[in-house]
Amino acid sequence: MSTIHTFQTSKRVVLGKGALENLRNQLFPFEGAKRVLIVSSPFLKKNGYIDLIGKQLNDANMEYDVITDIEPEPTIEHIETTFKRINRHPFDLMIGIGGGSVLDVTKLFSVLLKNDVSVKEMTKGKTISNKGVPMILIPTTSGTGSEVTPNSIVTLPDEELKIGIVSPHFLPDLVLLDPTLTVTLPKTITAATGMDAFTHSFESFISNKANPISDMYALESMRLISRSIVNAYENGSDINARQDMLLGSTYGGMALTSAGTAAVHALAYPLGGKFNIAHGEANSMLLPHVTLANLDHIEDRMKTIAREIGLLEKDESARYASELLIDQIVRWTQTLNIPQDLKSYGVKEEDVPALAEAASNVTRLMNNNPKKLSVLDIEKIYRKLL
Amino acid sequence: MSTIHTFQTSKRVVLGKGALENLRNQLFPFEGAKRVLIVSSPFLKKNGYIDLIGKQLNDANMEYDVITDIEPEPTIEHIETTFKRINRHPFDLMIGIGGGSVLDVTKLFSVLLKNDVSVKEMTKGKTISNKGVPMILIPTTSGTGSEVTPNSIVTLPDEELKIGIVSPHFLPDLVLLDPTLTVTLPKTITAATGMDAFTHSFESFISNKANPISDMYALESMRLISRSIVNAYENGSDINARQDMLLGSTYGGMALTSAGTAAVHALAYPLGGKFNIAHGEANSMLLPHVTLANLDHIEDRMKTIAREIGLLEKDESARYASELLIDQIVRWTQTLNIPQDLKSYGVKEEDVPALAEAASNVTRLMNNNPKKLSVLDIEKIYRKLL
Repeated sequence: MSTIHTFQTSKRVVLGKGALENLRNQLFPFEGAKRVLIVSSPFLKKNGYIDLIGKQLNDANMEYDVITDIEPEPTIEHIETTFKRINRHPFDLMIGIGGGSVLDVTKLFSVLLKNDVSVKEMTKGKTISNKGVPMILIPTTSGTGSEVTPNSIVTLPDEELKIGIVSPHFLPDLVLLDPTLTVTLPKTITAATGMDAFTHSFESFISNKANPISDMYALESMRLISRSIVNAYENGSDINARQDMLLGSTYGGMALTSAGTAAVHALAYPLGGKFNIAHGEANSMLLPHVTLANLDHIEDRMKTIAREIGLLEKDESARYASELLIDQIVRWTQTLNIPQDLKSYGVKEEDVPALAEAASNVTRLMNNNPKKLSVLDIEKIYRKLL
Repeated sequence: MSTIHTFQTSKRVVLGKGALENLRNQLFPFEGAKRVLIVSSPFLKKNGYIDLIGKQLNDANMEYDVITDIEPEPTIEHIETTFKRINRHPFDLMIGIGGGSVLDVTKLFSVLLKNDVSVKEMTKGKTISNKGVPMILIPTTSGTGSEVTPNSIVTLPDEELKIGIVSPHFLPDLVLLDPTLTVTLPKTITAATGMDAFTHSFESFISNKANPISDMYALESMRLISRSIVNAYENGSDINARQDMLLGSTYGGMALTSAGTAAVHALAYPLGGKFNIAHGEANSMLLPHVTLANLDHIEDRMKTIAREIGLLEKDESARYASELLIDQIVRWTQTLNIPQDLKSYGVKEEDVPALAEAASNVTRLMNNNPKKLSVLDIEKIYRKLL
């Protein structure tokens, strides 16, 4: 562990049932904004949330435009084409409401309006110098934690790759966490995004960059998700379970912002880039198998997690506690019907070497992994999913 | 508990031994700043920290001025007189390094430079409309948590009162938490500020406004402080204990920003205003007695605290757990030699009714208290300290 740890997040987070209806009371830091852009996805158009936001903006004497055609797992081309429609408009506030992709695109729009740098250049590491347009982010899934991370994930289809762009200017000014927005999530999304959030916290906790701050968020996140993921899945309208999942997901984002993720995420990226497998789904599939591969290096940390999420009734050996935790993770993947088969996504045995090579090259994340995994180790993990 | 909970903090926190030496690497969000004001106290002048900051500012092509005569428990007059010396200078970054008073004054200077409103008007509730000059706050005590709160406490000597001014613009852009800055704290300060920090978290946890977010910070803060307060007191150079105390204090600030403090703080304010008793000292003296008065309303919460700080070896009744926790608090006040006598500060029996009346009028905090305390109840608490 390094000696100096950095933690960064949104300056303001509002949590609770009804937070969206309460937006008007949260607009005071944005006084003087005249023209707002609401960014969202096709799904969100129908359910009235955008009208609810719009009405409150009008009450605050703000006008607004709406973009609802953000695609999931967006490509650079999609982002830049869509941006052309909003560029040169004098937006002075952005509101992103949706899943991780919508929030990630909102972050990009915000800085694109204030910086002379293209998304392509950002993926190549060009610095984003200026703070963007002020941003409010409102997640409608409990998974990515994107609302509190300085990351934006884009897809490069030509290179069959997903890339994370990182900038402190991607952190929003306000986050609304309203669990009522998540009660209509389909079961498969609840499952995959919930396990994705657990994976963020789990990997932050075992990361080589884990630190006292990230540990607090990671453990609290895992406590919340452990106690509520099955309830949220089986009874989507259980608002307390939904709030636990939403807060657990946000804490996961806070943890990974400080400690980073590791091999699970490194192995997930090529599955997204080459086979278009959704990020949350890929992480959920990989988690138990990568954990087994890492096990001999993380038993003490596994024991802490097992204790904190209530798996241990009395003190047990680290080895035994680790087995209980692995069992719990596997049981979740079964109860939640997380796919455990890459074949159905079109992955074939002959794709494995290239996937493993690509994963191994995600050094930013592989360097956080507590155990050094060779390309052969990684191949073995992918094969377990075939 | 209300349904909607707000959490706000500094966008960026850097923790660790050597964080101050690492300031240069943290200056990127302030690129373009030309003229920096360092605000500090007479104590801090000699130990080289200001030179260490200045050198790194120069390396980043920033010039700086220094003010080191901020008094503890500052009055409005002191703040406004000092401000006259800096007003109209083109400072574009402020660095406050010191205890709570220095940080609170830095916050005021930052907004005074950008708003046409006096400190006196702020104490009367006039809104601070504009964001101030960007701020970096660096605490050198582990107690107030001021580095992450939207509060600034000022003294009104004529009215024998301390008042908390609240504004989201008091939240800084960067916080450095470097435990090496706290190793030379005198024992009495380590004790009083440490118990003050514990009190912030304790009161946030039992507050009527307690919520899932504030609870996480409050409990983690109490875990850290409980395990390290005696070590930090007895062996000031124990850097791990110092880091626990510093982080515990910051989390206490985060907790109280969301949940508020309660009767301990309400009773401490008049002791500060009328008898000039330092805030941390007053809180530490009052904590066990106010807790006893509240006890029948907070036993379940007391049990959670007792369990989380490791006082319970097995499941016990809430009543028994509460007794263990009260015993622990009393034992700390003894081990840490916290004064338990208001007489030595000049408080007399005949002062009690006016003190109790004044405390009872701090409705902002008394409303957070889980039990309604009458003026007579409050008098009884003060009398225990005579």
